[in-house]
Amino acid sequence: MKQRLRSFWGWGLADETLPEVYISEFKRMVQLAFGLNSVDETPPPRLEELSLRTPGFSLPSDLKSFCTQETYDRASHTYGKSFRDMIRAINRKFDNPPDYVAYPSTEEEIAALMRFCAEKRIALIPYGGGSSVVGGVEQPRGNHYEGSISCDMVNFDKIIRVNEKSRTARIQAGIYGPAMEAGLKPFGLTIRHFPQSFEFSTLGGWIATRAGGHFATLYTHIDEFVQSLRLITPKGIIETREIPSSGDGPDANRFFIGSEGIFGIITEATVRLQNIPFIKASALVKFADEKAAIEVTRRLSQSGLNPANARLISPMESFSMGIGNGMDTVLLLGFESHDHDQEPKLRRSLEICREGGGTWSESDVSIRKGHETAAPGASERWKTNFLRAPYIRNTLVRCGIITETFETVTTWDNFDTFHPGVVSAAETAVRQACGNGIIMWRFTHIYPDGPVIYYTVIAPGKRGEELSQWDTIKAAVSDAIIAHGGPITHHHAVGRDHQPWFEKQCSPVFMSVLQGIKSNLDPGWMLNPGVLIRRPSGKP
Amino acid sequence: MKQRLRSFWGWGLADETLPEVYISEFKRMVQLAFGLNSVDETPPPRLEELSLRTPGFSLPSDLKSFCTQETYDRASHTYGKSFRDMIRAINRKFDNPPDYVAYPSTEEEIAALMRFCAEKRIALIPYGGGSSVVGGVEQPRGNHYEGSISCDMVNFDKIIRVNEKSRTARIQAGIYGPAMEAGLKPFGLTIRHFPQSFEFSTLGGWIATRAGGHFATLYTHIDEFVQSLRLITPKGIIETREIPSSGDGPDANRFFIGSEGIFGIITEATVRLQNIPFIKASALVKFADEKAAIEVTRRLSQSGLNPANARLISPMESFSMGIGNGMDTVLLLGFESHDHDQEPKLRRSLEICREGGGTWSESDVSIRKGHETAAPGASERWKTNFLRAPYIRNTLVRCGIITETFETVTTWDNFDTFHPGVVSAAETAVRQACGNGIIMWRFTHIYPDGPVIYYTVIAPGKRGEELSQWDTIKAAVSDAIIAHGGPITHHHAVGRDHQPWFEKQCSPVFMSVLQGIKSNLDPGWMLNPGVLIRRPSGKP
Repeated sequence: MKQRLRSFWGWGLADETLPEVYISEFKRMVQLAFGLNSVDETPPPRLEELSLRTPGFSLPSDLKSFCTQETYDRASHTYGKSFRDMIRAINRKFDNPPDYVAYPSTEEEIAALMRFCAEKRIALIPYGGGSSVVGGVEQPRGNHYEGSISCDMVNFDKIIRVNEKSRTARIQAGIYGPAMEAGLKPFGLTIRHFPQSFEFSTLGGWIATRAGGHFATLYTHIDEFVQSLRLITPKGIIETREIPSSGDGPDANRFFIGSEGIFGIITEATVRLQNIPFIKASALVKFADEKAAIEVTRRLSQSGLNPANARLISPMESFSMGIGNGMDTVLLLGFESHDHDQEPKLRRSLEICREGGGTWSESDVSIRKGHETAAPGASERWKTNFLRAPYIRNTLVRCGIITETFETVTTWDNFDTFHPGVVSAAETAVRQACGNGIIMWRFTHIYPDGPVIYYTVIAPGKRGEELSQWDTIKAAVSDAIIAHGGPITHHHAVGRDHQPWFEKQCSPVFMSVLQGIKSNLDPGWMLNPGVLIRRPSGKP
Repeated sequence: MKQRLRSFWGWGLADETLPEVYISEFKRMVQLAFGLNSVDETPPPRLEELSLRTPGFSLPSDLKSFCTQETYDRASHTYGKSFRDMIRAINRKFDNPPDYVAYPSTEEEIAALMRFCAEKRIALIPYGGGSSVVGGVEQPRGNHYEGSISCDMVNFDKIIRVNEKSRTARIQAGIYGPAMEAGLKPFGLTIRHFPQSFEFSTLGGWIATRAGGHFATLYTHIDEFVQSLRLITPKGIIETREIPSSGDGPDANRFFIGSEGIFGIITEATVRLQNIPFIKASALVKFADEKAAIEVTRRLSQSGLNPANARLISPMESFSMGIGNGMDTVLLLGFESHDHDQEPKLRRSLEICREGGGTWSESDVSIRKGHETAAPGASERWKTNFLRAPYIRNTLVRCGIITETFETVTTWDNFDTFHPGVVSAAETAVRQACGNGIIMWRFTHIYPDGPVIYYTVIAPGKRGEELSQWDTIKAAVSDAIIAHGGPITHHHAVGRDHQPWFEKQCSPVFMSVLQGIKSNLDPGWMLNPGVLIRRPSGKP
C-alpha cells in the first residue's frame, strides 16, 4: 500500500493500468450508444500543472512535525472520488485545497489538532481512504473558517489484538482493507466486508460512513461488525465496552456509526470477524421476465436462506459486465461457510428461481465442498469487473463521458411505484441535460422488507458543462427518491452532496437532536462542517 | 385481555392459578434446600387494605376525561414486577403511587398531558404492560416534582396496516403481545418476539426497553424488527421513514429504541414480521462436563447455523425446570422455518455436540417437516415452565423467599473470568445476606462473540428485611458485572434500579450526550425522571 503512489485526481493507484483492449471496448460501446464520431481524451492532470494557493495560516511547532503543505498531499486531499470530484480534477480546478494535510500518529496529536482548530476557527476534515463519492472529505467554502486541515488517519494502521475465541479484533481505524485482511489471514479470520472501495478505504471510514459490504443479507452494513469503538471528540474521548450486544439504553455505538466525522474522529474499533469461508455454492440464473425476477428475489429475501450474494442485475448492466445477453435479467446467487455444505441452500434457492421462470446452465452452478480450488465462475468474473469499474471511470471521464452511480432502498410494497418513478426522473433529466444516456440498475443487497437499488448513469457530457449537467440529473433523481419515500442513500453516506435531501427526509425534531449533539461535542463546529447537518442558523 | 383483571401486586392475571401440586413441589424443594421447618405464607394484599394518599394536585377538565384516581388503577401502576416491587406490594407498602393514571387514546391527549406536566412540574411515567423488573415504571421520590401521572398506553392497541409483500405491519405501541399475534395470524405472519413477559407487555414497551425475545441468534433484541417508529416528545413528533435499512447518518431509530421513555412516548411502529414457521427441528442434548458444553455452544454460535433456540442450562436450573437430572448441563436446540427442511442444520449441530461430548436420546430429537402436529417435546415442556415461572414467584415471595434474576453478556474470551467472578460475588453476598441460597444460570442468547448469561437467585428471606437483603445481593453482583467488563443488563433495561451502574459503564462524554438530548427534547425533565440518566446537577 505504501510503496505505490495513489492517483491524486482519480481512482486508485497512479500507475495501475487496465488492459488496453478492455478500455477500448468500453469506449467503443459508449461511442456506439451515444452516436459519437470520435472520443477525445483530455490528458490526466499532472502535478506540475497545479499551482495551489498558499496556506492561509501558519502552524504552531507542535503540529508542524506531522503536517505538510506539499502539493501532492494537498491536491490528493482536495476531493473524494465522485464524478463531481474527478471532472473538477481533470479540469485542473484545485481552487479549494486544504491548507495543510496532517498525518497524526497518536491520539494526543489528534487532540492537539482539535484544540488548535477550535482556537483558530479552522475546519478539520477527517480523512480515511478518501474514497467518498458524496463530498465527504472536501473542504468547506465560504468565509466562516480561516482555512482547513485534512486529517489523514493513515498512520493508525495497526491490528492491536486478535481475540480468536471471540472472533474479534481491536484495530486502529486508519487501516486499509487489504492490510487488515492480510493481518487477519494468519488467524483464519476475515472481516469479510468488501465495499467496492475496499482497496482504497479504511476501517474508520467504513464505520464513519456506514459502508455497505460483501453480504447481500444479514450483515449488509459495517454497523453489524462493530462491537466497540473509540472516538476522540473535542470534548473528550468516548469509548464503548467490548460486549457482544446489549440492551442498556440506546446503543451508544450507533450514535457514532454513520456520524461522518462531525462528532469526532474514530481511532480504534473492535470488530466482529468471520472464519474464512471455503465451502461455497453459487449460480447465475437468467430471467426473461424482469418482474418475475424481482418477485423471485423477494421470495429469496424472505426465505431465511440468507445468501451471502444475491445480486439481481438489469439486462443492460449484466451485458456491460460480460455476464448477460442484454435481454435477460441476471441473478447472481452465492452461499458460503467454513462449517457446512451450502449446496442444500443453493438447490432450494434454485427451486424458487425455477418456480419464478429462472433458467441456468449447470456450468454456471459452482459447488465447492472443501478446500479444492475451482475454476473461476460467473461470480468471480463479476467480482473482477466490480473492482475494475472505478478504474474505467478514470478514462471515461477524461473522454467527456458523465458516469456516476446513486443508490437507495425501498420496501417491496413500494417498489412498483418507486423504481419506475426514479428511473423516469433519471431518464427525463438525462434527456434534458445530455440528449441521451444509459440508465442501468442492480440490487446490491436484499432485505426481507425490500431491495437496495443501485443505479448507474452513463451519458455524453458537453465539455466544460459536465458538472452542471450531472448536478441537474442528480438533483432530479434525488428529488424523486425523497418524494417516493426513499432515503437519499443506502451505503454511500450523506456528505456535503446529499445534505439537502437528508434534511428533507429527517423529522426536524430529529435534526435538532443531531445539531444539539454537534454543539455539545464540537462547540466550534469545526469538524467536517457542512457534512450531514447544517448549523441551525443556516451557515456555513 | 381486557375481560380478566390483572393482579395489582404480582405477576399476571388476578384469577390465574397454577396447579396446586406444582406449587407445593416447588415449596417442598425450597424448604428442603434451605432447611426450613415450615413455610409461612403472607396472604396476598387486598385492595380494601390500601389507603393511598390523596392526589397532590387536581387536573384540568380536558385531562379529566381520560385520567382516573381509582385505587385499583393507582395501586397497579405503583410498581413493576421485580422482586423489589412484589415484596413491597406484599408488605402493603404503597406509599408512592401515581397521583393519577392516564389512559390517552390519541396523540393529542398525550401532547396535552405533556404540556400540563411541563407547566406544573409533574412527572409523567410512560407505562406499557408494566412488566419492568428494573424500576422502569415507578414514580420518582423526593420533592423535585409536584406529583406524577402514570401514562398507560393500553388504548393504543390497533394494528393499523399489514404490508404482506414486505412482511411488515404498522402497529400502535400499546398493543399487547397476544393481541398483536392474533391480529397477524390471519396473514400467516408473526413478530415472533417472545420475551418471558410476552402476555403482559406491549410493543411500545419492548421498543422502549430493547426487549430480548425468542431468537437465540441473529434477531435477539426487538431492535432488529423496528423498521420505523413514531415518537411524541415535548418538543414535537419524531417519525422515521419506512425503509428496510439505511446508511444515511446515524440510525435515527436507534436513538429512541432503548430510551425508556425519557425522550418521548412511542405511539406507533412499523415492525418486520416473519412467516409463521411450521418446519421445525429440535433436540435436547446433555453434557456431563460443563466446560465442554460451553465450548460446544461457542462453536455453534460461530458456525453460521443460527439456531432459533440455543439455551444452555445449568444442572440445577434444568433440574428445577424438569428437564435435567441435576448433574448434566442441558442444551436446548431448535431450528425453524416456513420454507425449507431444518433437519440438516440440526444434524450438523448434533455432530458438533457429539464432538464435544454431548449425548441425547432420539426421543429428545423432534423433526417436523410440515404441518403435522407432534407430541410436545422437551422444548415445549421447557416453554410451559418458562411462562409459568413468574407466577410461581407470586407464591414464593409470599412465603418469604427471595427470588430474582439478573442477566448480562460477555465475550467468549472473557467468559472464564467473568462468569466465575459474578457467581462468586453472588455466592458471597447471598451467604452474608441470607445464610444460604441457590444460584442457577442459563444462556438465553448466543452471539458469535459471546453468550448472554441469565442468573437466578433463590434464597431464604428474613421477614421485613427481604428488600435490604436483596438490595445487598444485587449491589454486589452489579459491582462484579461492571468490574469484569459486562454491561449492567442485556435485555432487562436500565430503569431506576440499574441507573448507578449504567453510569459507571458509560463514558462520561457519552452520558453528557444523553443528558443533552434529554434537555433538548424534554427541557423540564418530566418524562420518566430518574430512569437511565440523572440530571447533570445530580437531582432528582
